[in-house]
Amino acid sequence: MSRRARRNGFFLAALELGDRPRLGDRHAHRPKYFSDSEDLDRSVQREFARLEGLQAALFAEGARSLLVVLQGRDAAGKDGVVRHVAGEFNPQGVVVTSFKRPTDLELRHDFLWRVHQAVPAAGLVGVFNRSHYEDVVVTRVHGTVTHKECVRRFREINDFERMLAGNGTTILKFFLHVSRAEQGRRLAQRLSDPNKNWKYEPADLTERKRWGEYTRAYTDALSHCSTAWAPWYVVPADDKGVRNLLIARTIANTLAAMAPKYPRADRAIIRAARKLR
Amino acid sequence: MSRRARRNGFFLAALELGDRPRLGDRHAHRPKYFSDSEDLDRSVQREFARLEGLQAALFAEGARSLLVVLQGRDAAGKDGVVRHVAGEFNPQGVVVTSFKRPTDLELRHDFLWRVHQAVPAAGLVGVFNRSHYEDVVVTRVHGTVTHKECVRRFREINDFERMLAGNGTTILKFFLHVSRAEQGRRLAQRLSDPNKNWKYEPADLTERKRWGEYTRAYTDALSHCSTAWAPWYVVPADDKGVRNLLIARTIANTLAAMAPKYPRADRAIIRAARKLR
Repeated sequence: MSRRARRNGFFLAALELGDRPRLGDRHAHRPKYFSDSEDLDRSVQREFARLEGLQAALFAEGARSLLVVLQGRDAAGKDGVVRHVAGEFNPQGVVVTSFKRPTDLELRHDFLWRVHQAVPAAGLVGVFNRSHYEDVVVTRVHGTVTHKECVRRFREINDFERMLAGNGTTILKFFLHVSRAEQGRRLAQRLSDPNKNWKYEPADLTERKRWGEYTRAYTDALSHCSTAWAPWYVVPADDKGVRNLLIARTIANTLAAMAPKYPRADRAIIRAARKLR
Repeated sequence: MSRRARRNGFFLAALELGDRPRLGDRHAHRPKYFSDSEDLDRSVQREFARLEGLQAALFAEGARSLLVVLQGRDAAGKDGVVRHVAGEFNPQGVVVTSFKRPTDLELRHDFLWRVHQAVPAAGLVGVFNRSHYEDVVVTRVHGTVTHKECVRRFREINDFERMLAGNGTTILKFFLHVSRAEQGRRLAQRLSDPNKNWKYEPADLTERKRWGEYTRAYTDALSHCSTAWAPWYVVPADDKGVRNLLIARTIANTLAAMAPKYPRADRAIIRAARKLR
């Protein structure tokens, strides 16, 4: 986060291309600029109210789209953001895509093939729960992709995202940054909750042991792929209220800057309205 | 609505196959069994709370799906139901499909082709905003389909829906029944609202003049296609609170009857949970 943002204190600043993100444990905590007494709930509700009107206009305009990419370690809160933030949109205007382990068919294509199919059409907000960034992080930690291949993929990702941006898709990428201790707490809770533990396979638990490797892989990916046309935001995600507020506000500010406009109605419609009254 | 349902008074009864639905203006009004003092908001919130838990279990189970079909005249409230009722679901588990005028490609296929592509996968709730029923109503009013073809389509629809039901999709079909006066009020409001009137084409307004023809076409379609495996519900839709409550309750009751179950977690997961604590 830049000095200016820290001083201002209440919005996320985009990572600059080439800058290394700060992914230490303390950067995941609730930032000090949110006092304990800060009424986060009310602030979140205010952002949600903005989102609703802006999305309706984006949908009506039908010319541009917004893509929100969510990445983060297990239990970082991706599903929570989908539920709380994406859930505020009119369901007709939002498409959520969860990228799981690739299928056989997907593996027989380039790594951007399945992603391209899921980008939001004009007028829509698309939310990616995981994304093509798995292909430069998980693959790298597991050694299925070499460092050299990874660097090539960074460039391919930047080119792909620039093409999307050039064709009317505004892109926001959020890294939900959770500390190791908080992840431990959340996992302990989930793994003993019968409404949640069915999702886990024993192999999932070994990922936590590779904490440092993941930190390095994410640091690399974020610093190589935070471009002017598709910036990365590191979200302190230990506190769910802070996380939701910062993401909702960034999305609302971005939509406001896009300034979508309602199309004008046909004159015959205006006349008909007068008659019906 | 059956006599039993009227006596009970608070839930919708499915139309029986061959019964003619009552689509007079008075059947669109707020039913008398809702007293004016009835706190609809609280009742709706209670149904929404049920929906959330039931959907989470359906998603986790990942074996069956729910399809909600919404039909109704212009301004009957289809978009409102999508926003209020479908909006209550976790966006990861719900897929809304709005069927517009068919594209050239769609017209080069049978009328069920595009519909089949949009049916919800296992674990999901699908919501159809308009559906294959347009192809036995609008087409009929406009004379692009003969009576004989239409009767064949009724059978094809029943067969198709039975196939879906047999493969794990529970189907609910809601006809949002609005009175002519209430439609007039809503249209007058929309056509003079610049956030809404851009959607309208002059041709849309002539449909209102064919009120009786639409009533006949809907009566026919509903009575021929309200089957045990995919029943039609006629929703009195003049009052939005009543409409939302009756639909939310019918969906919640249906999901409750499906009784989705969370899968059991692997034993290794339970053990790992103990260690993390």
